[in-house]
Formats: sequence, structure tokens, C-alpha cells
Amino acid sequence: MRRAITLENRVQRKVSEDTLNKYNYRSFQTTEIGHPDIQRVAPKVHVTTGDNKVVESLRDVVKKTVHDGMTISFHHHFRNGDFVFNQVMEIILDEGIKDLTLAPSSLTGVMNDAVIEAIKAGTITHITSSGMRGSLGEFVSHGGLKNPVIFRSHGNRARAIEHGDIKIDVAFLGVPNADRLGNANGMKGDAVFGSLGYALMDAQYADKVVLVTDNIVDYPNTPASIKQTQVDYVVKVKQVGDPDKIGSDATRFTKDPKELKIAKTVNDVIVNSNYFKEGFSFQTGSGGAALAVTRYLRKAMIDNQITASFALGGITKPTTDLLKEGLVKKVMDVQDFDKGAADAMQSEENQQEIDASWYADPDNKGAMVDQLDVAILSALEIDTNFNVNVMSGSDGVIRGAIGGHQDAGTAKLTIISAPLVRGRIATVVPQVTTVVTPGDSIDVLVTEYGIAINPKRKDLIGQLNNIPGVPVYSIEELQKMAEHKVGTPEPLEFTDRTVALIEYRDGTLIDTIKEVKD
Amino acid sequence: MRRAITLENRVQRKVSEDTLNKYNYRSFQTTEIGHPDIQRVAPKVHVTTGDNKVVESLRDVVKKTVHDGMTISFHHHFRNGDFVFNQVMEIILDEGIKDLTLAPSSLTGVMNDAVIEAIKAGTITHITSSGMRGSLGEFVSHGGLKNPVIFRSHGNRARAIEHGDIKIDVAFLGVPNADRLGNANGMKGDAVFGSLGYALMDAQYADKVVLVTDNIVDYPNTPASIKQTQVDYVVKVKQVGDPDKIGSDATRFTKDPKELKIAKTVNDVIVNSNYFKEGFSFQTGSGGAALAVTRYLRKAMIDNQITASFALGGITKPTTDLLKEGLVKKVMDVQDFDKGAADAMQSEENQQEIDASWYADPDNKGAMVDQLDVAILSALEIDTNFNVNVMSGSDGVIRGAIGGHQDAGTAKLTIISAPLVRGRIATVVPQVTTVVTPGDSIDVLVTEYGIAINPKRKDLIGQLNNIPGVPVYSIEELQKMAEHKVGTPEPLEFTDRTVALIEYRDGTLIDTIKEVKD
Repeated sequence: MRRAITLENRVQRKVSEDTLNKYNYRSFQTTEIGHPDIQRVAPKVHVTTGDNKVVESLRDVVKKTVHDGMTISFHHHFRNGDFVFNQVMEIILDEGIKDLTLAPSSLTGVMNDAVIEAIKAGTITHITSSGMRGSLGEFVSHGGLKNPVIFRSHGNRARAIEHGDIKIDVAFLGVPNADRLGNANGMKGDAVFGSLGYALMDAQYADKVVLVTDNIVDYPNTPASIKQTQVDYVVKVKQVGDPDKIGSDATRFTKDPKELKIAKTVNDVIVNSNYFKEGFSFQTGSGGAALAVTRYLRKAMIDNQITASFALGGITKPTTDLLKEGLVKKVMDVQDFDKGAADAMQSEENQQEIDASWYADPDNKGAMVDQLDVAILSALEIDTNFNVNVMSGSDGVIRGAIGGHQDAGTAKLTIISAPLVRGRIATVVPQVTTVVTPGDSIDVLVTEYGIAINPKRKDLIGQLNNIPGVPVYSIEELQKMAEHKVGTPEPLEFTDRTVALIEYRDGTLIDTIKEVKD
Repeated sequence: MRRAITLENRVQRKVSEDTLNKYNYRSFQTTEIGHPDIQRVAPKVHVTTGDNKVVESLRDVVKKTVHDGMTISFHHHFRNGDFVFNQVMEIILDEGIKDLTLAPSSLTGVMNDAVIEAIKAGTITHITSSGMRGSLGEFVSHGGLKNPVIFRSHGNRARAIEHGDIKIDVAFLGVPNADRLGNANGMKGDAVFGSLGYALMDAQYADKVVLVTDNIVDYPNTPASIKQTQVDYVVKVKQVGDPDKIGSDATRFTKDPKELKIAKTVNDVIVNSNYFKEGFSFQTGSGGAALAVTRYLRKAMIDNQITASFALGGITKPTTDLLKEGLVKKVMDVQDFDKGAADAMQSEENQQEIDASWYADPDNKGAMVDQLDVAILSALEIDTNFNVNVMSGSDGVIRGAIGGHQDAGTAKLTIISAPLVRGRIATVVPQVTTVVTPGDSIDVLVTEYGIAINPKRKDLIGQLNNIPGVPVYSIEELQKMAEHKVGTPEPLEFTDRTVALIEYRDGTLIDTIKEVKD
């Protein structure tokens, strides 16, 4: 038997050479992307000259396009209001198609049952996604899928598609409107979700593109986020999504005093940093705490007469409200987390839809995230090397998504906003269960007890050391405080089997997730 | 010596097998594109992560990017107001770079001197373009360039780029605005031209993209017709174009009674055809007669309470006025011929910028031209097989451009609008000097004396036979009428040398142009 050498990469993870060889990976080394020359790939186009691509039978299209061994994709812009994934998967299962690679932009809870059934049937044998949660995370963590899932950030998925690491044979893309030839956008109709940012990659690079919609509009449909030149079929279905479930659950401002404290402190950190100046840029993400940060930031911008050049990423209504107020000049929008933001996309000239490549592909002639001053990100765990886990729970089970975490980590000031402990579980730990975003990317941790500054950011210490009511600790001190509160958990037990591979955004392997022991 | 077999293709041109073999072409056979599977190509991307691509020295950028033997490109959206081409070519000449292929979207008169100088210096050895006129046409027609020029329509250029037949190493793209990373559009600034339709191909497919602008705007610039992900350098120059020369010369309504007669008859043909109904679509092109057609059409639409679903192609102010009046629902805009149309692009939500591929690439999942009901096109000559020449004069000299002629010829009703004779020169001839658009594409010829209907369009005869004041002739009768007026010209004399190859839009060879005998 071959000797298993383990290499410690820059984030102190032991990834065996066997694992690297087996899955053909280089080990993560650095957050610096460098200046490689990248030969992009391109789709194979089946020339169409008819004047109507609308078909009534999704089954016919699936039978014509999907064959054993192919890679199929979906987007997750409908989130838990998605009616497309399950309809397509039901037909694929029914037709007995096998050995598919599932390559969606992400997987939401509403898809879980169908994915598990398809895995059990041998219909899905490979998965790459931004994340997974709930029953599917449990299933995979307990060894339910033979081949490890590959988790990629949104920017890394764009990179992988543009490199050919992900070669999509057929993309099924749900849209709230399309004309008879496939010109479509996410802005009009019943099931509006706003930006098609992630799906634009699939539309551009998949060999076959199938639009699914409940709303055929007059030709030619504009604005055409997806263009007729990219689309093979337009399938008319009864309902493409549930409008009430498209918006994120967490679009209300938090009333939790701990979350408010953290949000206020995040704002204090931003405002006291040298980055808070006319023309700064930021990404806040979603969730109640993020919305609260946006509210504090709004006041600070007004008080200091500062406007932002742009807000980036997944967008919420409080951010589009800043645009309407003139406090933010541009909103660069790869997805919308709520109906308010989605509706604004249609009416606001300065809210620009961007695709995932423009948002965050590291192998680009410049992505938006490279220009980001401030990013506020979450964490399930953060360790004393500032490495962040947003993928596996403290029980080792997959229950998260990389999203844009690694990507926005390129910001000049990357702030992790997280409670010191959650219930009886420490957030600040000696070593994260899974490294998703390397500590090199993280500048400040904000908890309800105080902040920790990454020691490599000596410049920030002077800026943030004397904020009233914001004590500065070392990350080790915060970790000890957390440990003091909740004690030291039993070490997790895993088998040797790899159930998931975590790529860094450049396509190197930053960590693996092992099967949990029952 | 090898025997020169000549093959008569579908347009009755004698293209020798030697010529086909020498230049690696298939002979034109049919206007039907069919349903081939096309492997698209993609650029090589040099990864950039800096936050400023603006450089002051165009020379430095040329030296870094352009090397012997490369293919370089430009767009012609500035028309005769272009200040980019000559600046770049002066540096290229000065640096002694040799053996370049010049692959602009088209060549305008203001570029002629520099091209001729560069050919003489051995700097330019190959050219592909939509057309050429004036001194450059004379120069090439008299054998000034060793290798034959390849003329391609706008749709065919898109096809050739997407296939890899044209592989652009460096694209120099002038824009009236850009931010520090290369987000740019044609809509704001001093030298506004509106749609960047042709240039979008270069931005997407060239390995290196150099923007040239006199107007650096705040980051991030939106709408981003060209995106930072596509751009390597942004060169700041003093002036990128002359606003007064960007607009077409022929944007005023004609007062010439002959042109007005033809325009009125074109309108009569449209209105009496079965295509004139609610939701019809049209492309009129530019020039005084086209503008007059639009004026007549406007009245007919109002009188008949008919609105058009879209107007397509190169756009003029009379067309955007129809949009504003609600008579046209969408304007699908690949270029703007005048300032009125360019300005409207910024203000009109329903004026959509489209790239040349979406406009007219035949090897697509459906281009806009495939959906076109009515196209009005011009002709230098049209022959008794309805073949049209828009490229060479009656003296055999190159003095035209294919433009979108072959592309819009796919319309369901393609009308050639042309005077029977021009001065002492017949327009309707027994055989055109150069076949650009095959007779199979042409449905009706409109002259000031009457119309001719392509005999293959028996359905049209019933529709158009009884229009008051519009006599219907056979094309042969019209040809005889022309001959009767101006006599039979001496046959042109050419040498055996091929100076230009005319591709059909599918990339086959439809005709050649020979060197004129002095």
C-alpha cells in the first residue's frame, strides 16, 4: 500500500498526498492569484433558425437533451420557491437516466429530497455546489454519495466553468419571463427574483440551454439578460416558482440585542477604519445582522457626509434603499435576497446586473471583488489562525455554503461578524472543523464581547484600538473566553472516507470533509 | 500547369477550383444555413488583479501587445469621426511592426491613407473587412495588396470570430467613456455613437482588449456594454473622435423626386404585402431614401392602426421616433447612424443594444435577422437573377461594403430599393460585376419605373400586382429598359489576379474580385 504523506498547507490542514493525487488537485498555497494566462473554453452550439423554441413538454426536452454520464445544471435564484429542479429531476429519475453530475449554482432545501432519491437511484453520482444543508448535508456527511462533493464559491464556479473544469452539457434555467426564442430576464412576471447573476454563466457556457418559464411574453423581450443566441428550448410550465418563498427568510431587521451589539460594533470598525471615506465600497450579505449593519452604516454615511461608490454581491432592500437615497452610487447585483431588491433592479438605472464571473472569478481581467473595500461575512467557526468555516457544523455535518465567502474575502477590510458562542457551542475555536476561507483573507473578527484584529494587519490596530465600548482582544483571548463559557467539546470522530472536497477560489484544494462516525 | 476547372455555383459565378483550393474555401451553394453543430472558440485571458488599467501612453501599450504576424482589430462606430485608428496605426508603423492582419468591423474613408501606407510598408499584409471605399478601394482594386482582401458581412464577421476563422490578437476599441478598469459604453461623453454592437464581438473574443477613450469616469461605470472582465488596458487620449463626423451624412430626408418615388413605392409594396400586419418587423438601413421609407411607413402604420414588434439593424432617428410614438415596440440596435438614435439609446428603455452575433450570426441558436419580416436594402447593381452587388462599381473598382446586406436578406420580404439607372450607368444589368447577396434572398426590386418580383415568390405576385401607380415588370424588362436608356457598356477588363474574396454569410465563397486593368 502506498504511503500516505500528509502535507500541511498554508492553512495548517493535513491533506494527504494520496487525496491530492486521487482527485488531481494542487494543495492550496496562497490567496494571491498571480497573473496566469488562461485559455477559456466555449460551448458547442447547435444551429437553430426556426422562429419558435417554445415546447409544452418538459419530458420531451429532457429525453432529447439529457443522457447518461452528462453534467446538468440549475440556478438557485428561486431559493426555496423553486419549482424547476424537482420537475426536471422527477422526469430524469422516471426516464432511468444514470451517472449524472449535478452542477447547480447552489442547492436549496426544497431540492434535498429529489437529490437524495436521485443519488440512491444511481441517477446522480457526482455533485459540485456552493453548499448544501438539512437532510442532504446529513446524507452526504454520512457517506450517502460515493464520490466526494466538490464545494466551490460562486466566483470559483465561474472560474471552473470558464476553464472547463465544469463542462455543463444541459442547463435547466427557470425564469419569470421569456419570449418564444429565449430572451429572458429575472425582473418581470409572478416569480421575480431580480438578478440572474449565477445563471448567466450557465446560459453562456452550457452546450444546451433549456429555459423553463410560466410566462411567455412578446418577442423580442428586453432587457435580455439571457439571450436567444444562448437558448435551445423554452419550456412552458404552469408555475415556475412560489413568489412567497423566493425572498430570504432573514430580511427583517434583528431585534436580538446580541446581534444588534455585533452589528453596531461592525459599523464602528468600518467607520473608524481608513477605508470609510468618500467613494468607499462594501458588501454586506444577507441575514438580520447584515441588515442591521446596513442601517447603522446608513446613519454613519449621512452623519459623515460620505457616499459609497458601490455596494456589491447579494443585494437586499436596505441596500437598494441606500441607492435610492443617493448614499450609494451603484449597486452591482449578482443576486437579490428579497423582493424589494429584485423589484428595484427593474426600476433603478444604477442597479447593474452582473454575472458571477464579473462578480468574483479570480482568473479574470479584474473581478468586482478585487475592488471591494469592506466585506462583512459570517462564520460558523473561526479559529485562532482566523481561518473560517461556513460549511460544517460543530458536529462535523455539512450544513452551509461557501457562497461568496472566499471571494469577498479579497476585500481590503474583511470583517467576520459572529457571536462568540451559539448556545453551548463556541464560534471561536482552536481549529475550525473545515477551512473554507483562509485566515490570510480575514482582517477583523467582531463578536458581542469585542473584536480581534489579524496580527498581520498591524495598520488596523492603530485605527481600531480606541473605539469607545469596543475592546480589542487577541483571537486567542476570544477563543479562551468562548472555551471558558462552553467548555471543551469532545473531539469529533470521522472515518477515513472523504465525502467532500473544499476548493479555494483558485481551484486548489484547501480542505476535505470526512464521513462522520455514527 | 494544373487545369483550372470552373464551377458554376448557385449564383452563376465562375469561381475556379484553383481559387477555392488555394484559399481553402467551399463554394457558395445555398442561402439555407441548416443545423450544424459548431464548436465555438474562446480567448486566452491574462489574469489581472490590479485596480487601475489606465495608461497614458498608447505607444507603450502598442509595443507591449502588438507583434509581427498578429491580427488586430478596430470598430467603425465612429465612422468618419474616428480618431483611434490613425493614432494606433501611426505607432504601429513607427515601431516597424510587420505582417499584420487588419480585421476591423469595417473601414471608413478617414482610415484609408493609413491603411495604404501600412500596406506599402509591409505592416499590413492581410485585410478582412465589411467593405472599403475611395482611395483604398482603388488601391486594392489595382493590385496594391498582395493577398486578397476577404469581405464579410457583419453577421459573417461575428460567425468568423465565434468559429475562430478570425482570431483577434489585439482589439483597439475607441469608446466615449470608460472607468479605470474598462467598464464602458457608447452612450455618454463627447463622442457618443450609441450601440457598440460590432465592437462587442472584439471585446468578447480578442485575447487582448485595449480601450481608447478621452473620458475616464467614476468606477464602476454602468451600463457596461464592454466589461472590465474583457479589458486589458484603458488608454487615455486627448480626443477619441469628432462628434460632428460620427453621424452619417445621409440622415436628412431626401428631396429628390426620384428617391421619393422609389420610397413611396417601397412603402406601397410593404403595405400591400401580407407581412404588413400587427406585430410586423422591419429593417430600413440608412440613407435619404431609407429615411423617406420610414416616413411613409409611419403614416401607413397610423392610418392602419398597426404597430411593429421591432425595428432592427443600424438605427436612425426617424426609427427611434417611431419607438417614442409607440408605433414600434422595440428597437434592436447594432449601430446608430445619427446622434438622435445614439442619444435615444440612453433614454429609451426599449431600445436594446445587440451585438453582431445576436443581430446576424447565421451559426447561432437564432439571430434577430431570422425573425425579420421586411428588409429594405440598396444595390449598386442587380441582375436578372436578382443577384445584388453592393461592393464594386460599374468600373470594377471596390467602392462599397457588404454591411448587413446578406444578413438582412434573410427577411421574409427583402426589397431592393434602387434607381433603374444612375446617370449613364444601369443599375439593373444582365449580370452583376460582383455577387454579394444571392438572388435567392431577394424578393422584390423597386425602381422609379416600377417593380419586379422574384419569380420564385409566386405568392407575392397576387399581393403586389394591382397597386395603383405601381407597374409590375419582369426583371428582364427592367433590365432592357435600363439598357435602352444608357446603352450597353464596354465589358470590363480584369487581369487574372484575385484582389478580393467575397464570402457569403456562412463562410463559403460566393464571388471574387479581380484586379482591374489600367
